[in-house]
Amino acid sequence: MPHSSPLKAEQSDAYAKMRRISALISGPLSAEDQQVQSMADVSPTKWHLAHTTWFFERFILSAHGYTPFDADFGFLFNSYYHTVGTMHARPRRGLVSRPGLDRIWAYREYVDDAMCHVLRAAGSGEAGFLTRLGINHEQQHQELMLMDIKHVLSCHPFPTGAYPKHPAQPAAQPLQEAGWWCFDGGMTEIGYSGNGFCFDHETPRHATYLHPFRLASRPVRNGEYLRFIEAGGYEQVGLWLSDGWARIKAEAWTAPLYWRYDSDTGDWMEFTLSGVQPLEADAPLRHVSYYEADAYARWAGARLPTEAEWEHGIARKRREAAPGHFLDDAVT
Amino acid sequence: MPHSSPLKAEQSDAYAKMRRISALISGPLSAEDQQVQSMADVSPTKWHLAHTTWFFERFILSAHGYTPFDADFGFLFNSYYHTVGTMHARPRRGLVSRPGLDRIWAYREYVDDAMCHVLRAAGSGEAGFLTRLGINHEQQHQELMLMDIKHVLSCHPFPTGAYPKHPAQPAAQPLQEAGWWCFDGGMTEIGYSGNGFCFDHETPRHATYLHPFRLASRPVRNGEYLRFIEAGGYEQVGLWLSDGWARIKAEAWTAPLYWRYDSDTGDWMEFTLSGVQPLEADAPLRHVSYYEADAYARWAGARLPTEAEWEHGIARKRREAAPGHFLDDAVT
Amino acid sequence: MPHSSPLKAEQSDAYAKMRRISALISGPLSAEDQQVQSMADVSPTKWHLAHTTWFFERFILSAHGYTPFDADFGFLFNSYYHTVGTMHARPRRGLVSRPGLDRIWAYREYVDDAMCHVLRAAGSGEAGFLTRLGINHEQQHQELMLMDIKHVLSCHPFPTGAYPKHPAQPAAQPLQEAGWWCFDGGMTEIGYSGNGFCFDHETPRHATYLHPFRLASRPVRNGEYLRFIEAGGYEQVGLWLSDGWARIKAEAWTAPLYWRYDSDTGDWMEFTLSGVQPLEADAPLRHVSYYEADAYARWAGARLPTEAEWEHGIARKRREAAPGHFLDDAVT
Amino acid sequence: MPHSSPLKAEQSDAYAKMRRISALISGPLSAEDQQVQSMADVSPTKWHLAHTTWFFERFILSAHGYTPFDADFGFLFNSYYHTVGTMHARPRRGLVSRPGLDRIWAYREYVDDAMCHVLRAAGSGEAGFLTRLGINHEQQHQELMLMDIKHVLSCHPFPTGAYPKHPAQPAAQPLQEAGWWCFDGGMTEIGYSGNGFCFDHETPRHATYLHPFRLASRPVRNGEYLRFIEAGGYEQVGLWLSDGWARIKAEAWTAPLYWRYDSDTGDWMEFTLSGVQPLEADAPLRHVSYYEADAYARWAGARLPTEAEWEHGIARKRREAAPGHFLDDAVT
Repeated sequence: MPHSSPLKAEQSDAYAKMRRISALISGPLSAEDQQVQSMADVSPTKWHLAHTTWFFERFILSAHGYTPFDADFGFLFNSYYHTVGTMHARPRRGLVSRPGLDRIWAYREYVDDAMCHVLRAAGSGEAGFLTRLGINHEQQHQELMLMDIKHVLSCHPFPTGAYPKHPAQPAAQPLQEAGWWCFDGGMTEIGYSGNGFCFDHETPRHATYLHPFRLASRPVRNGEYLRFIEAGGYEQVGLWLSDGWARIKAEAWTAPLYWRYDSDTGDWMEFTLSGVQPLEADAPLRHVSYYEADAYARWAGARLPTEAEWEHGIARKRREAAPGHFLDDAVT
Repeated sequence: MPHSSPLKAEQSDAYAKMRRISALISGPLSAEDQQVQSMADVSPTKWHLAHTTWFFERFILSAHGYTPFDADFGFLFNSYYHTVGTMHARPRRGLVSRPGLDRIWAYREYVDDAMCHVLRAAGSGEAGFLTRLGINHEQQHQELMLMDIKHVLSCHPFPTGAYPKHPAQPAAQPLQEAGWWCFDGGMTEIGYSGNGFCFDHETPRHATYLHPFRLASRPVRNGEYLRFIEAGGYEQVGLWLSDGWARIKAEAWTAPLYWRYDSDTGDWMEFTLSGVQPLEADAPLRHVSYYEADAYARWAGARLPTEAEWEHGIARKRREAAPGHFLDDAVT
Repeated sequence: MPHSSPLKAEQSDAYAKMRRISALISGPLSAEDQQVQSMADVSPTKWHLAHTTWFFERFILSAHGYTPFDADFGFLFNSYYHTVGTMHARPRRGLVSRPGLDRIWAYREYVDDAMCHVLRAAGSGEAGFLTRLGINHEQQHQELMLMDIKHVLSCHPFPTGAYPKHPAQPAAQPLQEAGWWCFDGGMTEIGYSGNGFCFDHETPRHATYLHPFRLASRPVRNGEYLRFIEAGGYEQVGLWLSDGWARIKAEAWTAPLYWRYDSDTGDWMEFTLSGVQPLEADAPLRHVSYYEADAYARWAGARLPTEAEWEHGIARKRREAAPGHFLDDAVT
Repeated sequence: MPHSSPLKAEQSDAYAKMRRISALISGPLSAEDQQVQSMADVSPTKWHLAHTTWFFERFILSAHGYTPFDADFGFLFNSYYHTVGTMHARPRRGLVSRPGLDRIWAYREYVDDAMCHVLRAAGSGEAGFLTRLGINHEQQHQELMLMDIKHVLSCHPFPTGAYPKHPAQPAAQPLQEAGWWCFDGGMTEIGYSGNGFCFDHETPRHATYLHPFRLASRPVRNGEYLRFIEAGGYEQVGLWLSDGWARIKAEAWTAPLYWRYDSDTGDWMEFTLSGVQPLEADAPLRHVSYYEADAYARWAGARLPTEAEWEHGIARKRREAAPGHFLDDAVT
């Protein structure tokens, strides 16, 4: 048996560290919280925990003389990998009370043990690549776990949070108005070209042409969007895409999904993972639909950037901008 | 403080015994099982546990200087008593992950303690009547708990049961064909008239006229209904009420809800609270819709009895017939 | 050829007279009006015209060496006579633009000619009975034509009527308050027993027992129902059946289907077959649902009669009461 | 009164000629055909006739001292020009039986007369531009009229056509296999830049970059798509976009919308504006969804072109290719 190389050790560490974050997300939630599917697009937390584990089992361990933990799990926890078999209907995930959360944690330990052996033996080849893919896959699902449980908790008639609120930022100087970053356009390239990991749809790197454009120097703030609401943004048909207008009227949208207006106090509140909080005017706007983002931009005399503009512009400015760490903020 | 009279002791015992049965039903189910609402008409087990407890709190304890366990519970666990306040939307009960099962058990203990004091002090008056009502109310919900969890568990792609199967009956002599009990009809009375408990819709006792009629001497058996299926019962429009025919065609019904045909073995199976079992030909037919019962009766050259025929006929035959004890069978 | 007996002549006359009434109903309506199906339960006028004609074709003419007018019509214009063949889906009747109205009138003439011959030859036997059935069948559909076109026309954003308004009644003395007709109850019989025509579900005549009861001496008036609305009837949960309450809240009912409140003038209006008219306080209340009738009765300290009470009571009072002639009022 | 300039005469002619084509499309259809709305996305033919007329009335005539034909028509026949007023709900257009077809033709004549005067007086300014816009607008709706009535007629259980079938083409030499047109890519421009009419979304003309690409030298033929079906194209998940696969399975798609397989003869048929016809293997494939086009391309080892590739490639080849004239084919 080959001894563990530094590379293998590094990947084992990355695997273990990533898996611990799923535990950090799940930790404050009850078995009942993790069972609920509040809409077809939401998956129960425990399903995420099992599905990401199944990924390692199916795509890595199955090639290494591994005995599956439970023969039914391939069907229950496949998401949409049609090429490796049939799967349970997505909108019915919330009906699957069994296995319970305890058994899913046993499943995770069982797979972690097996992954530990495989990574020691085979860290750098196909298994190494697939492990890196599986780590990134579960990291994506960690974002989904938080997005999904937020929706679940918000559906309660008296919604409460599950995670601690961030300590107040040190009293900052007043936020500056957003400026504009200007870009000359011309021929450029987008897509991934380094030696690290990327998803397949990030390739191939290819040439594209950009007209001169500008990007706002920071995300839109809640307070700015509030001005859009107060200016009657949701009542002016000319600001909205046709489908968007039909949708906001059909579903009576008057503010972003998690905003609530307290008619007793006249205050705007926001449901967060820490419960209902006063809306922070200087915090970045979150959880708006494409239609709302588009209407806001039109109202503000701008438009949404194209994918190529975004990628080109952000890559250029990355060193200057403080990148957001969504997950870190939420659970650490 | 008055000493406990025998009547009070009897009611305290009845209360405690009834409450234990809810625990027996809940016992084999996980927190996740008890969270799921598989359709709008189904309530989660834990909701039943809390709602029945809320009934005692709201209608009895609140009149005895009682401090509510949790101010939100009135909204969460009211079912449709509009006169005592607003309530959560029934089809969304399965989204309420909080309180969790543990807290609901704490709620039950808290209310049981308070009821214990009230029953000692006031067993025979208004509180006595309402306690008897609350006991009957929770007994109804015990039947619903079993009916509802059966549906929940049946929705799993690999359904399993939660309760032990009954031991096989001693090898009985072959079941006799059903005979007919004949009734002369004429003027009779239906409705409750005794001194015991009854629900309000069981009164007033009143006169009614019955034409001569016959009732089958025992319930229809699975094996008899299977002959109806095999004779093409679900394909003969003339056997069905118009609405029934529309429904069975729209939803592709070909057998009772919990029957499954195993095309590999050619056997009929039935999903039960003990899991999927071979269909017992001699067991009473269960879980058919009104449409199916009506069509079967028409196929068999009979019809369903009216309420008055049923009540009159069963009351007369009760001493001869072995009454079914649905709940006892299921959980003891 | 046998000469026409008086009986045959009488039936031919009845047939012809009845068929002319369908033409009177259809007359004021355009081809477009008669094409529209405004909800699944509504049939286009032209479908009624064709379906009632198909009835004579299928059940009478087909037994008399008759050549069908169009081989497709059996499928298109069968309603739910499953025993004589398949049929078009009811909610899709409004999509069938062909045959057009002209061709349906040609169909009616073709069948009328054939019926004329059959009735001359065979007026008294099976064909005689079936003709009487077909006449009653079409008369039922004449009521449906008016009920259905009323809904169609009401769906227009600027609804108009199609039939002339009745001349104002001579200024009557003020309407008397409703009194009560009292009935002793006891054993009675309901169901048809004469020598004339009846539908099959009107038989057999059978004994039934009635408790003493009272019937209001005249129908509820619009003005009375308006008092129920003004007293907050649609906001008091205790007045409504549980399903009814769920329905009126889900669909935001606040008044009968065809009533409209004019917030500019403060007047109540009613959409009628003659267009939108001021609500007549003294006219009988029409087009309320079962739920509304039931809630009104409860509010008024009464209840709806049972079928047996109604039939017994009305039969007794028929000679005294001026029977309504719905159809005559509408089209003559 | 100014004399008519040649430009004005030319536009009057263009207007009149275009309007006659709407009449040609409507001509073979009955009033009933033109009333039906077979799905929310379909508009009744008569609505198209009125809406396109309203466009001239609202955007041109209203600025020239014109008396509207009917004050209600602005609401009834506005489509989604929210800026000029409210409008009737699109999915309910088929319920509007009034005005009937005759009155809509009177409306068209009334507006044509008024337009005639305006065009004589003011052909070249704002009215001239808007007239050109209105002509193009109605031409778009002429395509919709044919697309929509095709769907309406196809919904009949025994569908028939409304327009004559094209005479058989002279016996052609066998169709050649499709070749590839090759394009070098590089910087190019798309968008309209001439002096003629264009819609606003065709501007501004702008630079874009194209990678080298190839376009098939002719449209896909029915016979080619049939090979895709016979190769199991609708059963291979890997060929479909995820949403597409979900859709074709949910709605049981197995062929293009208007194709029907005749299981008696084993022949494929196609519903056309001339009725059900044998599928022409050499005719261009029509009425496939985006999902089907995408899956076919993937199966054929190709992909769908981008908008820029399509516009660039077709513009280059336009002189060589015989452009299709959809409308001419259908009605002349």
